[in-house]
Amino acid sequence: MRTFILPPEFNGEHEFKLSAKDTHYLTRVLRMKEGSAFAGRDRKGNGWNLSIILHKQDVCIIGCQQAGPSFTSAPEALPAYNLKLREIHVYIGLCKGKKFDQIIRQATEIGATRIVPLETEHAVVTLAEKDLSSVHAKTARWNTIVKEALQQCGSQVPTEISTPMAIDGMISEWGNKGPVLVFHEAPIARQTPLFEVLHNLPPSLPIALVIGPEGGFSPNEIDRFMSQGFNSILLKTNILRSETAAIYALSVVQSYLEEFRDE
Amino acid sequence: MRTFILPPEFNGEHEFKLSAKDTHYLTRVLRMKEGSAFAGRDRKGNGWNLSIILHKQDVCIIGCQQAGPSFTSAPEALPAYNLKLREIHVYIGLCKGKKFDQIIRQATEIGATRIVPLETEHAVVTLAEKDLSSVHAKTARWNTIVKEALQQCGSQVPTEISTPMAIDGMISEWGNKGPVLVFHEAPIARQTPLFEVLHNLPPSLPIALVIGPEGGFSPNEIDRFMSQGFNSILLKTNILRSETAAIYALSVVQSYLEEFRDE
Repeated sequence: MRTFILPPEFNGEHEFKLSAKDTHYLTRVLRMKEGSAFAGRDRKGNGWNLSIILHKQDVCIIGCQQAGPSFTSAPEALPAYNLKLREIHVYIGLCKGKKFDQIIRQATEIGATRIVPLETEHAVVTLAEKDLSSVHAKTARWNTIVKEALQQCGSQVPTEISTPMAIDGMISEWGNKGPVLVFHEAPIARQTPLFEVLHNLPPSLPIALVIGPEGGFSPNEIDRFMSQGFNSILLKTNILRSETAAIYALSVVQSYLEEFRDE
Repeated sequence: MRTFILPPEFNGEHEFKLSAKDTHYLTRVLRMKEGSAFAGRDRKGNGWNLSIILHKQDVCIIGCQQAGPSFTSAPEALPAYNLKLREIHVYIGLCKGKKFDQIIRQATEIGATRIVPLETEHAVVTLAEKDLSSVHAKTARWNTIVKEALQQCGSQVPTEISTPMAIDGMISEWGNKGPVLVFHEAPIARQTPLFEVLHNLPPSLPIALVIGPEGGFSPNEIDRFMSQGFNSILLKTNILRSETAAIYALSVVQSYLEEFRDE
């Protein structure tokens, strides 16, 4: 564990009582003891210097001090690159369980702001037919994967998972927040080279990346995107499975944005 | 299957007898019949228009015609981007089974020329202590993953897996073939921004990417690399697990090289 992710109930208390599960994780899995100091983050991405004040069976009280720009308790918890990462939202066509888990894990590590499962025509998986409780179960599992990935990579970005939405939902919720880059495996009219799009991005706005499911987007869906003025991009590589395409696109876009920062 | 990967024994014959295993794959798994046409590649990456001439139980004879720049039998087998990809060799610190399998699968999809497992000081896995037969078994499994990935993505690059080597072995086998980019999670002296390195790469030479294991390279290892004049690069992102770092680095480097091609 690089940083401990504080539960959503944490609200800046100086002393905070952990759940039995978190207590087990810290004291059994990581073998921490009373007095152990470690780095943490709350759900807004703020850093906290934490230490175990009391541990008795399945109860653990931790002391919490806001960390400011660095951690005193565990300075190695901070990645070497610690400027604020540009906001990137990843909309990705739903795919089968393990593949989608892998995307969530890797996109969280890289520091995506938000991951949004997209219901598309060619998607192998659809949630629309399923009852609400199974959608909730899926979202809960995804949130666990995010938490584990955040604890491992020390990311300052508290990646969010949205509930799945259709393309119309994506278009209306995104509105004019910022530029949208749609990655599509087949060439279509009006495609701009990726680095030209990146070079011309307006400063500081959040960016949305849209990646199709296995089999790509349908012609209808591509038309919907194009009518919104989104950028369509053909990656100059082989045909990638969607879990690889998502990480490929996110890596290139983030590394460009961080290298050529606005400020 | 996008393209069928011909066995190493294939030597340009007009008619070729497949193994029982390949016969089973084409006729049972993919339900192809006599007369079925499909796209294939040999182990050098050349395209072939293939068709089943005869199928009897576990024997299958296929007809083979060299495809030139496109496939007539299955034109969709060719990725939309079909220029020759720049040669990229990925040296990656050995990590545990499933993670390493994932790296091989994704790097093959993306079109890495060669993947070389590196034995490093911090590696969780070492093969040096193991007997030759278990190294062979591992290499055989990796080759199966490569073949499956090639069949799925239609890559023109017949990705190779080398037998594992130590850092000294890497340095002597690479020699002066081309620039080497070493990705390291901690900042060290003389680090150049990634895009500056990419911008200054000499044209057409093969590129080597070197990615550390979980825990990164040791100071000794970094010294060895630096004394060779390799480029050390700190990715401007969170701390990534090695399987994510490998794909992140490969994606950024490949997309830059393909966007700004020499010819």
